[in-house]
Amino acid sequence: MSTSSIPAMPRMTPQDYQAFDALFALSSSIGATPAGGLHRLTASAADKQMRDAFCTWLTQQGFHVHVDEIGNIFGLMTLCEGAPWVLCGSHLDSQPLGGRFDGAYGVTGAAVTMATLARQLRDHSQTAQRNLAVVNWTNEEGARFQPSLTGSSVFTGALSLEQALACCDGEGISLHTALQNIGYRGTALPDLTVAAYCELHVEQGPHLELQQKQIGVVTETWAALKWQVTFRGEQNHTGPALMDRRRDALLAAAHTIVAVRAEAERYGEALHTSVGRLETVPNSPNVVTSEATLFIEFRSADEALLRQLRDSFGQQMQSIAQNTATDVSLDRAQYRPRQQLHSALSDLALAQAEKLGLKAMPMRSVAGHDAISMSYHCPSALLFVPSVDGLSHNEREYTATADLHRGLDMLMAMLTELCLKGEDALC
Amino acid sequence: MSTSSIPAMPRMTPQDYQAFDALFALSSSIGATPAGGLHRLTASAADKQMRDAFCTWLTQQGFHVHVDEIGNIFGLMTLCEGAPWVLCGSHLDSQPLGGRFDGAYGVTGAAVTMATLARQLRDHSQTAQRNLAVVNWTNEEGARFQPSLTGSSVFTGALSLEQALACCDGEGISLHTALQNIGYRGTALPDLTVAAYCELHVEQGPHLELQQKQIGVVTETWAALKWQVTFRGEQNHTGPALMDRRRDALLAAAHTIVAVRAEAERYGEALHTSVGRLETVPNSPNVVTSEATLFIEFRSADEALLRQLRDSFGQQMQSIAQNTATDVSLDRAQYRPRQQLHSALSDLALAQAEKLGLKAMPMRSVAGHDAISMSYHCPSALLFVPSVDGLSHNEREYTATADLHRGLDMLMAMLTELCLKGEDALC
Repeated sequence: MSTSSIPAMPRMTPQDYQAFDALFALSSSIGATPAGGLHRLTASAADKQMRDAFCTWLTQQGFHVHVDEIGNIFGLMTLCEGAPWVLCGSHLDSQPLGGRFDGAYGVTGAAVTMATLARQLRDHSQTAQRNLAVVNWTNEEGARFQPSLTGSSVFTGALSLEQALACCDGEGISLHTALQNIGYRGTALPDLTVAAYCELHVEQGPHLELQQKQIGVVTETWAALKWQVTFRGEQNHTGPALMDRRRDALLAAAHTIVAVRAEAERYGEALHTSVGRLETVPNSPNVVTSEATLFIEFRSADEALLRQLRDSFGQQMQSIAQNTATDVSLDRAQYRPRQQLHSALSDLALAQAEKLGLKAMPMRSVAGHDAISMSYHCPSALLFVPSVDGLSHNEREYTATADLHRGLDMLMAMLTELCLKGEDALC
Repeated sequence: MSTSSIPAMPRMTPQDYQAFDALFALSSSIGATPAGGLHRLTASAADKQMRDAFCTWLTQQGFHVHVDEIGNIFGLMTLCEGAPWVLCGSHLDSQPLGGRFDGAYGVTGAAVTMATLARQLRDHSQTAQRNLAVVNWTNEEGARFQPSLTGSSVFTGALSLEQALACCDGEGISLHTALQNIGYRGTALPDLTVAAYCELHVEQGPHLELQQKQIGVVTETWAALKWQVTFRGEQNHTGPALMDRRRDALLAAAHTIVAVRAEAERYGEALHTSVGRLETVPNSPNVVTSEATLFIEFRSADEALLRQLRDSFGQQMQSIAQNTATDVSLDRAQYRPRQQLHSALSDLALAQAEKLGLKAMPMRSVAGHDAISMSYHCPSALLFVPSVDGLSHNEREYTATADLHRGLDMLMAMLTELCLKGEDALC
């Protein structure tokens, strides 16, 4: 028992930073690419290896590990029997040839910070009003299985477990099978009352760097419209087939990709657009393409603009189909509305940054994050640290260690407030 | 020994048509698709099964089977020891989800016709001045391995054996390994003096049907320029990454596909163009594409036009690269010049068609065929039968049985002339 009447506020010590550095280095080594990135797709062998290592680490640190039915890994640390939980985490899966920081930072950072906080509270016999849980959400990236944010969406009920498990990768393997193959189809989590969710992440954009800030406190997110669209034409020989008889689905796809980009040019930085994935059949050099499937994204803070695009771009694709003698179908549409994050939690974050002497700013997030899923379910915070050149989903993604450590300081300060003050922290 | 002093001219009997129908049906059943097409890529399991079945058939019919170093299968029928050979054939590989007729017709048709001719010559004790050989050329299609026309190009020396064996498919498997895996890496063929090469094929275009002809005698071919081009950009997150900082290789590819088609519009039917295959990295919905490889074709009878395109389109791709902040490189270029087929052989074909009462016409071929490879090496003939709607490289590719049989009649007439008259047949 501590002999001091005013116990020191919990904080990260040099040993705790080292513990984080070690866990993060472990994460960076599993699925590492020669160019310094990470290739750790959901439910791949590398993902299994990382999950196993993470579960071992959690157990060694005194967390109780629970894997739920969609493969989310929870590390539970009971500090106050029966009290609500503060949940922190992100995801350990990566994009193909992706970066080491995206997701992995949030999981490893939360785990180390929580272990540190629990230890220091015990050391000083401080009474917590909240329990702590760290989480690794399944398939945040949506690279292998669509839609993205799968694990957190199932947790909140936004996506049914059945639908999520039925999602198939490009080879036709379901998420159900893939999770079973790596031994991460778990069991339903006993009800967890979540008082707050916090997520640390690298920015994946250039704004903190451009503004020379150390911490970004996300107050709201852009809306996103995601379409999976298929053009269907007809296979033919690329040599003798008369040009005006061809029904070339790849040509239709190409016109669409150009048109998607033209929309972004039209609206300046108010609209981000892309086609990141394209699948074609039969994809042979001398065969006219019969089928081309595009994954289209429109993102904006302006929901009216996205509504308008939904109609006008649909018409544009019909015109493209007509001009190329192809048919077009909308296979899947997903709309993520603009979302406000919890203002009291944002305020708490900004106040803690000031106390710590960190240069912070409120900002918007364009990317989707598990914190956005969670924000429909409970008070949620999303904290960014700078990302060099704003580069992400790239092997060269990089954040300096000092910036990573500042993020841990922020998280520690917030968790301390939430744990010690309970409800009052958000007043 | 025949008792007749003027032996009957060899011809296909109803039993011979049946033998052809049976062998062709066997071919159609190996690698068959549910939609009635054929999926029998070079050196695949289905290709092995078809090759095995074909070798068995050849042996049963009295051919001596030889597999050469690039996997070409020769069925040799010696009729006149030491005499030159008349070679006939095509290819048993297909496009992905391709048709049953393309290639398979030429191999099975030649095999049955040659077996018939040899039998009837023996039955009537007629003296041949030529030997007969049927051939299945490896990887005509160029679907799995590029370039196409591999086996026939190695045979003529246009492509070195080493280069051909080193070609890799999309998974990085070399043709060498693939042939070894199916047991079709054979040994060098003893020198074969080829007096003439004949190939039967379905047209793969609409001209015979439009002109209501039964036989097309190809007198010349279009030239073809084939490019493999790669655009390189940079992976990034499709959400937050600023639009004007993106270096999107898929966008560059899309502009190129549109531009390739625009060239065809500019020159009307004088130019056929296409992009049939596109490979992208990392091909994830929310990652800006870092690498896009396109397989571009320009085909024309006008070689000056292709020379001009080689320069102007190269410049266009440089502009596209500049406008999309990507880099572009030409990975491989292949030029197949316009080629005249052997006029005396074409004349022989047209004369035989007239004798048989078949409606024939001289025509150009836009597509490449093994007969084009062979035409640089020896007198070569390429005969077309009609293809419904000109549809090819498609599961719905179709030629009526009566048209297939008429092609066999043509081949029988030509082989008879070449075999019985030797050199004189081409005077």
